[in-house]
Amino acid sequence: MTDPLPEPSSELTLDLDRAKRCGYPEVVFAEGKTPEAIVDAIRTLQDANQRVLVTRLTPEQAAVVCPHFTDLTYSPRGRTLRSPDAARPIGDVVVATAGTGDLPVAEEAAGTLRWMNVGCEVVFDIGVAGPQRLLDRVERLQRADCVVVVAGMEGALPSVVGGWLACPVIAVPTSVGYGASFNGLAALLGMLNSCAANVTCVNIDAGFKAGYVAGLIASAAARPAR
Amino acid sequence: MTDPLPEPSSELTLDLDRAKRCGYPEVVFAEGKTPEAIVDAIRTLQDANQRVLVTRLTPEQAAVVCPHFTDLTYSPRGRTLRSPDAARPIGDVVVATAGTGDLPVAEEAAGTLRWMNVGCEVVFDIGVAGPQRLLDRVERLQRADCVVVVAGMEGALPSVVGGWLACPVIAVPTSVGYGASFNGLAALLGMLNSCAANVTCVNIDAGFKAGYVAGLIASAAARPAR
Amino acid sequence: MTDPLPEPSSELTLDLDRAKRCGYPEVVFAEGKTPEAIVDAIRTLQDANQRVLVTRLTPEQAAVVCPHFTDLTYSPRGRTLRSPDAARPIGDVVVATAGTGDLPVAEEAAGTLRWMNVGCEVVFDIGVAGPQRLLDRVERLQRADCVVVVAGMEGALPSVVGGWLACPVIAVPTSVGYGASFNGLAALLGMLNSCAANVTCVNIDAGFKAGYVAGLIASAAARPAR
Amino acid sequence: MTDPLPEPSSELTLDLDRAKRCGYPEVVFAEGKTPEAIVDAIRTLQDANQRVLVTRLTPEQAAVVCPHFTDLTYSPRGRTLRSPDAARPIGDVVVATAGTGDLPVAEEAAGTLRWMNVGCEVVFDIGVAGPQRLLDRVERLQRADCVVVVAGMEGALPSVVGGWLACPVIAVPTSVGYGASFNGLAALLGMLNSCAANVTCVNIDAGFKAGYVAGLIASAAARPAR
Amino acid sequence: MTDPLPEPSSELTLDLDRAKRCGYPEVVFAEGKTPEAIVDAIRTLQDANQRVLVTRLTPEQAAVVCPHFTDLTYSPRGRTLRSPDAARPIGDVVVATAGTGDLPVAEEAAGTLRWMNVGCEVVFDIGVAGPQRLLDRVERLQRADCVVVVAGMEGALPSVVGGWLACPVIAVPTSVGYGASFNGLAALLGMLNSCAANVTCVNIDAGFKAGYVAGLIASAAARPAR
Amino acid sequence: MTDPLPEPSSELTLDLDRAKRCGYPEVVFAEGKTPEAIVDAIRTLQDANQRVLVTRLTPEQAAVVCPHFTDLTYSPRGRTLRSPDAARPIGDVVVATAGTGDLPVAEEAAGTLRWMNVGCEVVFDIGVAGPQRLLDRVERLQRADCVVVVAGMEGALPSVVGGWLACPVIAVPTSVGYGASFNGLAALLGMLNSCAANVTCVNIDAGFKAGYVAGLIASAAARPAR
Amino acid sequence: MTDPLPEPSSELTLDLDRAKRCGYPEVVFAEGKTPEAIVDAIRTLQDANQRVLVTRLTPEQAAVVCPHFTDLTYSPRGRTLRSPDAARPIGDVVVATAGTGDLPVAEEAAGTLRWMNVGCEVVFDIGVAGPQRLLDRVERLQRADCVVVVAGMEGALPSVVGGWLACPVIAVPTSVGYGASFNGLAALLGMLNSCAANVTCVNIDAGFKAGYVAGLIASAAARPAR
Amino acid sequence: MTDPLPEPSSELTLDLDRAKRCGYPEVVFAEGKTPEAIVDAIRTLQDANQRVLVTRLTPEQAAVVCPHFTDLTYSPRGRTLRSPDAARPIGDVVVATAGTGDLPVAEEAAGTLRWMNVGCEVVFDIGVAGPQRLLDRVERLQRADCVVVVAGMEGALPSVVGGWLACPVIAVPTSVGYGASFNGLAALLGMLNSCAANVTCVNIDAGFKAGYVAGLIASAAARPAR
Repeated sequence: MTDPLPEPSSELTLDLDRAKRCGYPEVVFAEGKTPEAIVDAIRTLQDANQRVLVTRLTPEQAAVVCPHFTDLTYSPRGRTLRSPDAARPIGDVVVATAGTGDLPVAEEAAGTLRWMNVGCEVVFDIGVAGPQRLLDRVERLQRADCVVVVAGMEGALPSVVGGWLACPVIAVPTSVGYGASFNGLAALLGMLNSCAANVTCVNIDAGFKAGYVAGLIASAAARPAR
Repeated sequence: MTDPLPEPSSELTLDLDRAKRCGYPEVVFAEGKTPEAIVDAIRTLQDANQRVLVTRLTPEQAAVVCPHFTDLTYSPRGRTLRSPDAARPIGDVVVATAGTGDLPVAEEAAGTLRWMNVGCEVVFDIGVAGPQRLLDRVERLQRADCVVVVAGMEGALPSVVGGWLACPVIAVPTSVGYGASFNGLAALLGMLNSCAANVTCVNIDAGFKAGYVAGLIASAAARPAR
Repeated sequence: MTDPLPEPSSELTLDLDRAKRCGYPEVVFAEGKTPEAIVDAIRTLQDANQRVLVTRLTPEQAAVVCPHFTDLTYSPRGRTLRSPDAARPIGDVVVATAGTGDLPVAEEAAGTLRWMNVGCEVVFDIGVAGPQRLLDRVERLQRADCVVVVAGMEGALPSVVGGWLACPVIAVPTSVGYGASFNGLAALLGMLNSCAANVTCVNIDAGFKAGYVAGLIASAAARPAR
Repeated sequence: MTDPLPEPSSELTLDLDRAKRCGYPEVVFAEGKTPEAIVDAIRTLQDANQRVLVTRLTPEQAAVVCPHFTDLTYSPRGRTLRSPDAARPIGDVVVATAGTGDLPVAEEAAGTLRWMNVGCEVVFDIGVAGPQRLLDRVERLQRADCVVVVAGMEGALPSVVGGWLACPVIAVPTSVGYGASFNGLAALLGMLNSCAANVTCVNIDAGFKAGYVAGLIASAAARPAR
Repeated sequence: MTDPLPEPSSELTLDLDRAKRCGYPEVVFAEGKTPEAIVDAIRTLQDANQRVLVTRLTPEQAAVVCPHFTDLTYSPRGRTLRSPDAARPIGDVVVATAGTGDLPVAEEAAGTLRWMNVGCEVVFDIGVAGPQRLLDRVERLQRADCVVVVAGMEGALPSVVGGWLACPVIAVPTSVGYGASFNGLAALLGMLNSCAANVTCVNIDAGFKAGYVAGLIASAAARPAR
Repeated sequence: MTDPLPEPSSELTLDLDRAKRCGYPEVVFAEGKTPEAIVDAIRTLQDANQRVLVTRLTPEQAAVVCPHFTDLTYSPRGRTLRSPDAARPIGDVVVATAGTGDLPVAEEAAGTLRWMNVGCEVVFDIGVAGPQRLLDRVERLQRADCVVVVAGMEGALPSVVGGWLACPVIAVPTSVGYGASFNGLAALLGMLNSCAANVTCVNIDAGFKAGYVAGLIASAAARPAR
Repeated sequence: MTDPLPEPSSELTLDLDRAKRCGYPEVVFAEGKTPEAIVDAIRTLQDANQRVLVTRLTPEQAAVVCPHFTDLTYSPRGRTLRSPDAARPIGDVVVATAGTGDLPVAEEAAGTLRWMNVGCEVVFDIGVAGPQRLLDRVERLQRADCVVVVAGMEGALPSVVGGWLACPVIAVPTSVGYGASFNGLAALLGMLNSCAANVTCVNIDAGFKAGYVAGLIASAAARPAR
Repeated sequence: MTDPLPEPSSELTLDLDRAKRCGYPEVVFAEGKTPEAIVDAIRTLQDANQRVLVTRLTPEQAAVVCPHFTDLTYSPRGRTLRSPDAARPIGDVVVATAGTGDLPVAEEAAGTLRWMNVGCEVVFDIGVAGPQRLLDRVERLQRADCVVVVAGMEGALPSVVGGWLACPVIAVPTSVGYGASFNGLAALLGMLNSCAANVTCVNIDAGFKAGYVAGLIASAAARPAR
């Protein structure tokens, strides 16, 4: 006999007021949700004329969800699904990675910035074991309003980048590594203890949050002062 | 017989180039330094016409250092020593605390902001156990360019504050608590896992870094766009 | 050659005396048990005229077990199998969740309360990132005899709920989250350090235990005083 | 030069509304506060006609604070200072300890219960290494509305007590032990994993919180049903 | 091209001298070995006229290995393969478990004892949540030369058993549990901190080692004194 | 006003029945007790004609306690106070240490063995960095009924000793070390994972427990079989 | 719609300058890379006339990659793919393992040494539980320029080996073990705390790094002094 | 009555054979030893014509020990006491530090190298927050036979240095830092996970071991090849 517990009318209660309160609509975190619930959430946002961002959307979920929304863009590596890019982005964020394995997290950050309509460029594979690669990019990084640095293993790159820059650096530890990386813990601790004064940190693999905060910073810097 | 290891001419090699590279001079971290080394460092900065900020200066160290510099301001609770405030701060940062025990860390952040010449206000004792206290302050917080939230124990306040705001929130876990707070670890983990999208995190008790990044964000937001 | 170790007559020794000693019969924890052992345990309880509750019963186990007991109710999301609800529940417990991912644990708690014949309502998706959602429910929560709060990630909701209420709050951390949530450790530590005085805590994902203790509290409060 | 940071008028913002919202006034946590701030807080509570409870008041702080308030009762071992006991307590809580070293935490719980005007008895030294000692007390424990069990080292006592009782058990791990007790972590984990269904847990050494929740449970059980 | 690294003639170098040095032959730990290597190891032992014990032999490995050795006994739950039992065991060990999930570890211990030719009895499901079940067995346990106690979750049983006995107790934490059991860590810490003086501890799920040491103790106690 | 909480008649409830149940009287753990309570406990044991063992008795406590009991023996390094040695010890235990810093723990074990009237010899400084030192002692160790091995840092000695012996080895990790020894955690983990089958483990610095269990084993081995 | 994020022309930016800067070319870490990216990387190295080493190449990846490069050697157990061995290796490194399960890591080290053209021999199964096995090899080990010791579980072997040798020992903890080995953490901590002065440590399972550093040491020792 | 436990003739058994077996005499670790035991140990070494190195000798111990040995050199910051430097050191090691607080550990390494008669230079304050400082030193570092890198906080410097060098790098994490540095754990994990292939690691604050291994490497590289 099926459980007679009264089911909620919908599994998801979207916070439609968030766009007004926080500047951007609620984002749909796909992990652990059924494709149907995700489709419902996207429709609710679209009906309220809010821009759509879905994160952690696996290829399996995407195969069901995407055919319903041909106007949305899916990034398989970054696992984001989002509304079409706007015409003229404002602000300038660079997302830099230490190694190839950090790219999915970097693309989640980049997809978030595009959804926020903030300009962004991904610079990759500038890890500290090949120091010349970073030196070649310092000038580009110094022009940014905010830099997101994505790194696993020992997570040293944000400190090294931070030492060259005057803007805030958002450090994202990744679970790339093995053994005593403890799934990103080593990188996280490294970033929290960064000796560079302009570095703050987000959760392991939290590309979305890093992109979001970088977008807030860059767009405020690029807007006319209040 | 004393060790004939060649002593360095000074214990401290200040990075005087940092002001140009990063926008603000190097800060003197007093922990583990002799008063003499601290006095030397301050003189070096002053000779180079750079603004002075010393952090983690204990009352015992201050008793030796401060008499040499009557123009500098010492905050006993925040343990900072800094150059006099400038006339017209720019930007607006609110530093909010959950409880009384978090005040020293909040004052380190506030002292840093004053040294950066960024406007700041400390709002205290708005922890979640007394929810009305936060609701009374929401409007004030919504006017800020950036909010620093300082909390120990379970570290819930940044998430709650973040949910009301459109600007970035810098969360500072403190070592206030006992038992399973593990000297701030519980608050740190809570803040790293914050469900509010605009929250990034710094090290436990890292008032300086939180103030510094908040100052970068707020001054960029308040400056005319590039 | 098969091991001649003397097999116990049954894998499971039920504590049939528990109903008398503790007020409720022993509950069958299905994890790691064969369907046959579960069927045996249910029959033993039914033969002793005791109400049945099976927890952590996977759909795979349920497919074998449920056909034997058409009078029992299976909840696929909460993974409980239980005796039919009684006519008139006593007491009032609200089970509140922070997010959608916390629902399975909440339903385990709710199923336990129904088995205990205690009144219960599930209130969901009132996490702190959307603060208005909680404010809308405060009045309902204040009428309860006990509130169970289920949350993953930073686990801030019990503290926030606790600050509004005069009744005990049972906090259940869940393994919902990623990275530095460490499978629920962050939420657990947050709840143990709650600054709200009326919050106690159970194990990660322990919906059964939270429901059970809430049921004890609510039924004692609803019974005539001794 | 002293820091011109505007000082708050008082270090402490008491939540005087809490008595109405939560049923009991705010409690003063003395750790990290100056004696002057504690005296101020007590006066504010007394001026608002609210009962006083100060916790974690060291003998050094007490030597300054107590002479101002001859009507308050100080418990040196439990480190509580509280308003005089009321005439007729309601409800019945037993606070049980495993060993002698757990007594300070037990007395903090007991002092909290007296401040709440809930009946309480302390039963001590019934740790599991001497099993007869618990068996002698089972009957007494079975009469209680709620039992608080305080234990360090392996923290086994709450499970053993819980198996005999029908009422809720609040388990308090203590930092008593050495080596791999890791300052109470072993006891905390043991209590969180208790196989007894009626056991919930609070922070290490959190005698106040255990007493408070036990008081809420016992007084609700002893009051006429709503 | 296959790697021309010189292969060892056999993957496994058995320590055939161990029987003389330590009293019992080397045991074959099957985890991570190919069935062929296990067959080789057994043959080597048999050729040297040494008794065989293989531990952690999965059903998949057993399906390949067992047909070669019809005289050996395989225990599917305990995952041991061993030489036939001897006629007259010496000494008396009781292996006691807290719950059903602990049985595989208990059977590994029991299989080890039989291989050592030490008398053993398995007593199961006497966990502390049903205290009468232990009391019924105390007299039997008091007759043993050594008791092995196997428990997961909070691991309280060895302390409780230890308090009743004059012989050594070998405590085996198991990975049974969830959430904050951290795969047996909670039980391990509990057992290391046991307040009972006669309790020592082995690794999580280490049924073999517990059985082995218990066998050493019991056979020495049962032998005529030197 | 002093707290009117009814004081227990004595702080300590000795388990005088333990000698009969467990073979040896209760031991007085001095940590956290007042000298007066320790004196009382000793008198209670002596009045009941039970042998006295006090552990963790600091020199400060001893200065007060010892003058009352001129017949008892105090070991300042082992911090034990005990009844006079009996005439003819039975059994043979060797207590071996890796380094000089492990001696206090070894002496606690040795003092316990003497109180139990078990023969014991301390063999010290045979750590693995000087391998010849162990080889010189192997013959002596092979004659023992049980060996206690005390080691800090990496805790490798019990494995190495265990590989040479046929009797049980009780491993005691010590807090000797620095950095990543984490106050004995490294040694503890090493000993729990020992590849030698005859090694069990006790808590960090738990010399008493190691001595006690070794004494149980050795005296049973030395007694005529039942 | 596929994401229009501009793709990098290649996923991998090889550091071709490394051979000049560091003495050896960049190594391709295969974990998390597509076979196509690995093929590209190998071609890039070969086009630049640099020797090839790929590590952590699974059999699945190898099945796609190897057919393109018939001149390269694949080691299935060590999971390395490398350029053909050179004619006359210089220097002498011994790679020693504690048990059979450590062989894959040892072979990764050995493959790395062959790629560096450094002489190497693998000595296996000399774990401390069978002490004679090590004594038989001491003379061979004493002739080496550097010894790599690979061990899981308690990780005692490097300390024991180190005590016999005058050359540096590189210790590699492996994830071999169970329970409180915590996937190699126990062995790692043991090796970091080694009492032997000549032991340094690398990450868990880091056969490549151990081989690489041993190769640097041995080739420098074997080269004519500068 | 004083304990009649037979005292060892000396507290310390020096391994005088070590010089022959390992190339250098045993080193005296002063932590936890009495000044008298240290004086004895030094005399024993001198009587055997072995060079003396004492580490972790506090100023308090030194005040007693040093007056007996006017030919030995004491370094108060590095806390070493050692035989006079030899005339012509061989090999070249650079000891580099990230910050001022790392100097004591660096000096322990340097004192060890001087005792080994290996050439060494200390280069300090080249932490990554001031990147130009390292670039200025790269050429010097590239000439060394081995480099010791000492760093606390996030411990990023060894990776950055390693990327520029062809020789082995010995990384020493220090306990410099606060909060989530967890007394050096963050730096240790960072160094273990270093992406630079030439980096191995020692224990937190283990200046002696780093210096020792660097000395072995550099002297072997500087000696004529065998």
